[in-house]
Amino acid sequence: MLQNVPTRQTIEAAHMLIAPYIHRTPVLTSAFLNNLSGTNLYFKPENLQKIGAFKARGGLNAILSLTKEQLRNGVTTHSSGNHAQAIAFAAAKVGAKAYIVMPENSPQVKISAVKDYGAEIIFCMNTPEERERNVQEVIARTGATFIHPFNNYEVIAGQATAAAELISDAGVRLDAIFAPVGGGGLLSGTGLSAHYFSPGTRVYAGEPEGAADAVLSFRSGKIERAPYVKTIADGLLTYLGDKTLPLIREHVADIFTVSDTEIIAAMQYLWERMKLVVEPSGAVALAALLKNREAFTGKNVGIILSGGNVDLARLPFGKEV
Amino acid sequence: MLQNVPTRQTIEAAHMLIAPYIHRTPVLTSAFLNNLSGTNLYFKPENLQKIGAFKARGGLNAILSLTKEQLRNGVTTHSSGNHAQAIAFAAAKVGAKAYIVMPENSPQVKISAVKDYGAEIIFCMNTPEERERNVQEVIARTGATFIHPFNNYEVIAGQATAAAELISDAGVRLDAIFAPVGGGGLLSGTGLSAHYFSPGTRVYAGEPEGAADAVLSFRSGKIERAPYVKTIADGLLTYLGDKTLPLIREHVADIFTVSDTEIIAAMQYLWERMKLVVEPSGAVALAALLKNREAFTGKNVGIILSGGNVDLARLPFGKEV
Repeated sequence: MLQNVPTRQTIEAAHMLIAPYIHRTPVLTSAFLNNLSGTNLYFKPENLQKIGAFKARGGLNAILSLTKEQLRNGVTTHSSGNHAQAIAFAAAKVGAKAYIVMPENSPQVKISAVKDYGAEIIFCMNTPEERERNVQEVIARTGATFIHPFNNYEVIAGQATAAAELISDAGVRLDAIFAPVGGGGLLSGTGLSAHYFSPGTRVYAGEPEGAADAVLSFRSGKIERAPYVKTIADGLLTYLGDKTLPLIREHVADIFTVSDTEIIAAMQYLWERMKLVVEPSGAVALAALLKNREAFTGKNVGIILSGGNVDLARLPFGKEV
Repeated sequence: MLQNVPTRQTIEAAHMLIAPYIHRTPVLTSAFLNNLSGTNLYFKPENLQKIGAFKARGGLNAILSLTKEQLRNGVTTHSSGNHAQAIAFAAAKVGAKAYIVMPENSPQVKISAVKDYGAEIIFCMNTPEERERNVQEVIARTGATFIHPFNNYEVIAGQATAAAELISDAGVRLDAIFAPVGGGGLLSGTGLSAHYFSPGTRVYAGEPEGAADAVLSFRSGKIERAPYVKTIADGLLTYLGDKTLPLIREHVADIFTVSDTEIIAAMQYLWERMKLVVEPSGAVALAALLKNREAFTGKNVGIILSGGNVDLARLPFGKEV
């Protein structure tokens, strides 16, 4: 199972491959949040990435790794979120056809974004079975290659480049890096990059209390389901896969859960103090650091802000922090 | 009157002086806004600057240029906006006392920000006469040095460093740079930096229709008042000074007015597509470029996003763009 795990060279090659198509997002700091946390924080704002999220990295690496023959038949995936946009965007970059299976109740803004990249959308009922059945139909009809949102080593190697850049650009040795965890593509890639490029940097994850499957899987070693599912961080609802779980168990130090209230507070700091539009899922890593700040006093801590795709007409801010 | 105009060396020295205290904000690009405008845009996001606005640059340069004797008596200014925070912030950096005269109806969030930097706030009625009278009282009582928000060559030299960095970091030769204009500190500094560091780069300004004094002053050569004052861009309500007007007449190619609807649309693009929290005044330069895009087709255009201090509980977004 672990025989094709991305190596240091794999991640470096992925970075070379995708670099012409992505933003090298900057590393940002905030005196306010350093004071608040008692740590030195180095933010990697992947909300400023193409398509507004780190997912552009993995989608690009997966698609750029396909053969010409595979690309001729196009690519497919199911997603209502940032992965759908990432695949549509990456396919457009190489002139390949993308077939995106989306739940029929997806927000109009996300449907429009996928359409704008020229992808074909197949609507389905919003159940895992129906999504899967529709993707299989697409594959049978077109021969398209399925790109899993996280349980795919090319995707993981692509997501790993965010932490690789952060390690390279922070200007200090990072004691820790925090990332959010949903399916675990970003988190396992972050773990791998720390392992290869900054041994000794410990990787931690934040996970919503209302989607707390990864923390259970991390402890048991099996793919667990969340006890209940209810969170504002709608990008983190998925559970781990058989490729991400072992990498996370090997390269991640711990997973911390955070409440929606803590997520919204972190999000509001990012908007008000750092002037960054970050979606709830994108604020989870900061929320986890803030909740556990005492354990990191005086440390240099990297924080991956994973995305910024949020509906401005429906914001969770009642009043100023 | 023009004998102390900042030189190339003055601006370079200002940059050296303030560099340890400011962020070197990145240069950002957006494929979406390039497509929309038909130009190649290079954004300088000064909303990511210390205190959330470029004003930190001018405030720092003015205060760091004072003698120890002057600093011993502190500094003072009147402002309800970003300049108040800039002076409070800069004074705190050098351990000097700041006396900030603010209108008694200033937003609580702005009062708190100034207080957090340790400044003493003097509240007054919100008229130009009362602001001026209170500042004179402070000076008589304390001997503090008055730092004008824009009609001050050290302030102008500080603001000039934003365009100097943009010119240095854009990676291309800029055909034009757009900046907003209120009192003209940022705009005259931008004009000077283009003149010294990128001759041939033409500088343009955006100004709200509901605060259209600078465009009149630019044409007449006298300091004019706006025909009417009503705009969401509350950072741009001031009129030019006797130091900024001549610099703008000499180094700025044109001033374009934009409506509040155009400002809000530009602001929404910046939030939704670039994931940046930008205040209405900070979106005026982009609004001006978008309105006049036909004249810049295919050109490399720098856009200064001047600030991001906005109340999240009162946003002008009705629905998605």
